[in-house]
Amino acid sequence: MGSKKRYHILVTNDDGITARGLQALRDALADLGEIMVVAPATEMSAVGHAITLSDPLRVWSFEKNGGFFGYAVKGTPADCVKVAYWALLNGKRKWDLVVSGINHGANTGIDIIYSGTVSAATEGAILGVPSFAISLATFEKKDFGVAAKFARQLAEEILAKGLPKGVFLNVNVPPLPEEEIRGVRVTKQSRAVYEERYEIRKDPRNRTYYWLAGEKVGIPQDETVDDYAVKAGYISVTPIHFDLTNYAFLSELETWRLSR
Amino acid sequence: MGSKKRYHILVTNDDGITARGLQALRDALADLGEIMVVAPATEMSAVGHAITLSDPLRVWSFEKNGGFFGYAVKGTPADCVKVAYWALLNGKRKWDLVVSGINHGANTGIDIIYSGTVSAATEGAILGVPSFAISLATFEKKDFGVAAKFARQLAEEILAKGLPKGVFLNVNVPPLPEEEIRGVRVTKQSRAVYEERYEIRKDPRNRTYYWLAGEKVGIPQDETVDDYAVKAGYISVTPIHFDLTNYAFLSELETWRLSR
Repeated sequence: MGSKKRYHILVTNDDGITARGLQALRDALADLGEIMVVAPATEMSAVGHAITLSDPLRVWSFEKNGGFFGYAVKGTPADCVKVAYWALLNGKRKWDLVVSGINHGANTGIDIIYSGTVSAATEGAILGVPSFAISLATFEKKDFGVAAKFARQLAEEILAKGLPKGVFLNVNVPPLPEEEIRGVRVTKQSRAVYEERYEIRKDPRNRTYYWLAGEKVGIPQDETVDDYAVKAGYISVTPIHFDLTNYAFLSELETWRLSR
Repeated sequence: MGSKKRYHILVTNDDGITARGLQALRDALADLGEIMVVAPATEMSAVGHAITLSDPLRVWSFEKNGGFFGYAVKGTPADCVKVAYWALLNGKRKWDLVVSGINHGANTGIDIIYSGTVSAATEGAILGVPSFAISLATFEKKDFGVAAKFARQLAEEILAKGLPKGVFLNVNVPPLPEEEIRGVRVTKQSRAVYEERYEIRKDPRNRTYYWLAGEKVGIPQDETVDDYAVKAGYISVTPIHFDLTNYAFLSELETWRLSR
């Protein structure tokens, strides 16, 4: 490395500190500098942007292969970023980059709002740190190699160029061998939503329970949309933010008779 | 009522089915038509947009004052809207309006992304139903009268005019007597963030635990921003959506060297 700058990077996820995708991500970024790993103690998928307010948060050192690996947090991905910065680092030393992943399963389109993986990158951006979330778009195959390699490349690009305040990136990688990846697409969040379905079952005491199933419908055949880009074999990179204001409707709403 | 149209309205919240704010909201909307109440069995604050995927969901009838009041769900606010539509109504009869609240505590600025109250309105909008979330901006006083009255007025306005696809409203009401409310402001989501702090304590077994504290800093003195409008005594109405794409950065990101 010689005189090359050494960066300070937080790596987290929502699949938990034992997840293979987290290890692959850490390994891919390792020689960029000092990698801090702070991740949920257990799997935390679809927790959305939950934070732990009503309960205390437990944090402990997590060892792997006989050495210190990182901190396990009995909480959500958003908790991990908050407690890492405000408690473990005393609110004093910001990272150069926050990376969340590599998630096992896509986080495209409407999934973004349910995603713990994305919520961790959101917390990075709230702290003013360039951040991205990265997911491998499958629940089956588990080769994180292509995603890890892209994470490394994107990390270098972001560290060199920065990101605008409040903007962060959501990356999804198709589960394909490297030679079958068609390229990288900058995309928008898809507007396709779920056609949900609840399976209605009976428990051993004959009481009803519901279990969520369902599938995404109405994905447009448009390679500039995240859902479709990934299906079409592209790595999808979507710039997102945490300002939910719908600016287009502001002025019309002003004309409503809301004042009393 | 006579020949007046009777509407079908879902009322939910994140403070739980026993919360006074939920009752106040239901009562305020009651004579608009048929009000369906489906709410979490227990308090679910700061759950963000969590949904229950890995566990079954329990739903039961909840009685109050000797009669049927609504359905209690052992899940999150987002679960409530999903299970209400896709299971209890078999995915067949959409409401004319979804209202979430009246939350006890503000949901302005960055709080929106942590808010279970807002997530329920988001689910309404995902279903294509006009929706709003409404919160009373205090953890202390609990007079929901002014907020309930405004909820009723806004409900009628929305039922008459509709909302654009994917857009819904986030309402915050200051904890003031009606005569001290300065009016209604259409606002943007504030960009103020939290200066967090974790209290570090020891449990009876001398193990460390962390508890999140902290306060919002950098609220601009601008009545067109939700955080400040509420502080200044206005009812704040913010149009929001669930498209997180940062369109402004799309074209610059296209110039990055991302392709391999």
